[in-house]
Amino acid sequence: MTAFIDKLSAAWTANDSLLCVGLDPDMEKLPEQLQWEPNAVYTFCKEIIDATADLACAFKPQIAYFAALRAEEQLEAICTYLHENYPHIPIVLDAKRGDIGNTAEQYAREAFERYRADAVTVNPYMGFDSVAPYLEWKERSAIILCRTSNPGGSDLQFLKVDGQPLYQHVARLVADKWNTNGQCGLVVGATFPHELEQVRQIVGDMPLLVPGIGAQGGDIPATVAAGRTAAGSGMMINSSRAILYAKPAAGENYAQAARRVAQETRDAINRARAA
Amino acid sequence: MTAFIDKLSAAWTANDSLLCVGLDPDMEKLPEQLQWEPNAVYTFCKEIIDATADLACAFKPQIAYFAALRAEEQLEAICTYLHENYPHIPIVLDAKRGDIGNTAEQYAREAFERYRADAVTVNPYMGFDSVAPYLEWKERSAIILCRTSNPGGSDLQFLKVDGQPLYQHVARLVADKWNTNGQCGLVVGATFPHELEQVRQIVGDMPLLVPGIGAQGGDIPATVAAGRTAAGSGMMINSSRAILYAKPAAGENYAQAARRVAQETRDAINRARAA
Repeated sequence: MTAFIDKLSAAWTANDSLLCVGLDPDMEKLPEQLQWEPNAVYTFCKEIIDATADLACAFKPQIAYFAALRAEEQLEAICTYLHENYPHIPIVLDAKRGDIGNTAEQYAREAFERYRADAVTVNPYMGFDSVAPYLEWKERSAIILCRTSNPGGSDLQFLKVDGQPLYQHVARLVADKWNTNGQCGLVVGATFPHELEQVRQIVGDMPLLVPGIGAQGGDIPATVAAGRTAAGSGMMINSSRAILYAKPAAGENYAQAARRVAQETRDAINRARAA
Repeated sequence: MTAFIDKLSAAWTANDSLLCVGLDPDMEKLPEQLQWEPNAVYTFCKEIIDATADLACAFKPQIAYFAALRAEEQLEAICTYLHENYPHIPIVLDAKRGDIGNTAEQYAREAFERYRADAVTVNPYMGFDSVAPYLEWKERSAIILCRTSNPGGSDLQFLKVDGQPLYQHVARLVADKWNTNGQCGLVVGATFPHELEQVRQIVGDMPLLVPGIGAQGGDIPATVAAGRTAAGSGMMINSSRAILYAKPAAGENYAQAARRVAQETRDAINRARAA
């Protein structure tokens, strides 16, 4: 198995893309013709994947949507489909797990054995021994929450520790102590480009998962300028709803609409990389 | 539906117990006769529940163990079994979820609709809007991580914010701002009784889920002295592995061994309450 960071780097290059396509299947928003299909979630995600796989550097299924729908088997099938048809595109399971060591071992099995994800998002609140079990899987990565894009993100992450906000402390902790084998990444929202820039300065070339563009309103040029590495990559810039539920133009089906928005987003990111 | 706190209070009284029995079904530790049964996880948990239901104030399934085993349907069946046979004992789903609003809504559906849990554990790192969707379910509760019992718990939770450790800041935030409808509780480990005492002083009578006795080594008298309310309750003191995998004495089966340890633990807690 290829290490996550190598797989991601190859996908950045092969698809000339920093775009991560989030898979958040919400039954209320699925195209009408799928609403009554028993495997609607699988069919929908498969169509989105086929329509965007040459434009994406990663796919990020959000497990909450599958869990709410009792659709774990469909998520397994989606991950298998990705491995069989697009083995060069990494899967980031967005699970934001966080628990003590022996429980974290079970969550690592869920992410890496059951869903065969290349990386999983993890919450840092419980400290290093809640992250370490994921790092036992040497080819996989743990993408740790640092600065999140939601309004309440500031409630804890912006508290001052030794004069600096907690999220910067987390960035330093991960960069200096937790990232022993180069297996860590960070989640840093696009809604605060200045903070993204500060995290980039702290963590060097560490890969960043950046949610918050698209439906959440983050600015693409500011995000790219703030978060790119010297090599012009280093990020998985995620868009979920804006792609998945793109409104079809005349003559388009939902997958074509998703492809159009994905392409516009990838290209907007690439224009910002070239600027 | 009865509000979580009322159901918990009634169970404290009815069973004269502050003991929460954790359900962490680990295939490697299950009794040999169950190893090859297709519904081993369900059967095991059902036997443990039947053996301990008159000794417990709550049952706490740890969802990671079920997820690693692809056993979500068995967890659903266990929750249904609890509701049908022991409707007076609350179910605390230990999931430690934490995500932005629209995703948290999905996790709330997972916990409260799919598994019909009375309460769910939640991570505070992403702030209030990551907790609020659980509080929309007015009869249910969110038990928020405050001070955890694992070694790495100090990595973030002990960082100083305005001169006081982060976990105390979280306790204040929950008590003063997040607990608008009396639906919040906190997770505070038994491994640090002095810190448990400080949290109790901050949060008044708020219910505390206290892991860390049993296999994790926390001291029962110190825990009870530090964490009880004026009424002598206020806690769900959790034990999982020490009960589930109790070594049967001569002539005992595994469920009888679990009952014996659960009874010893409940009684040790009650002796400490009386002291």
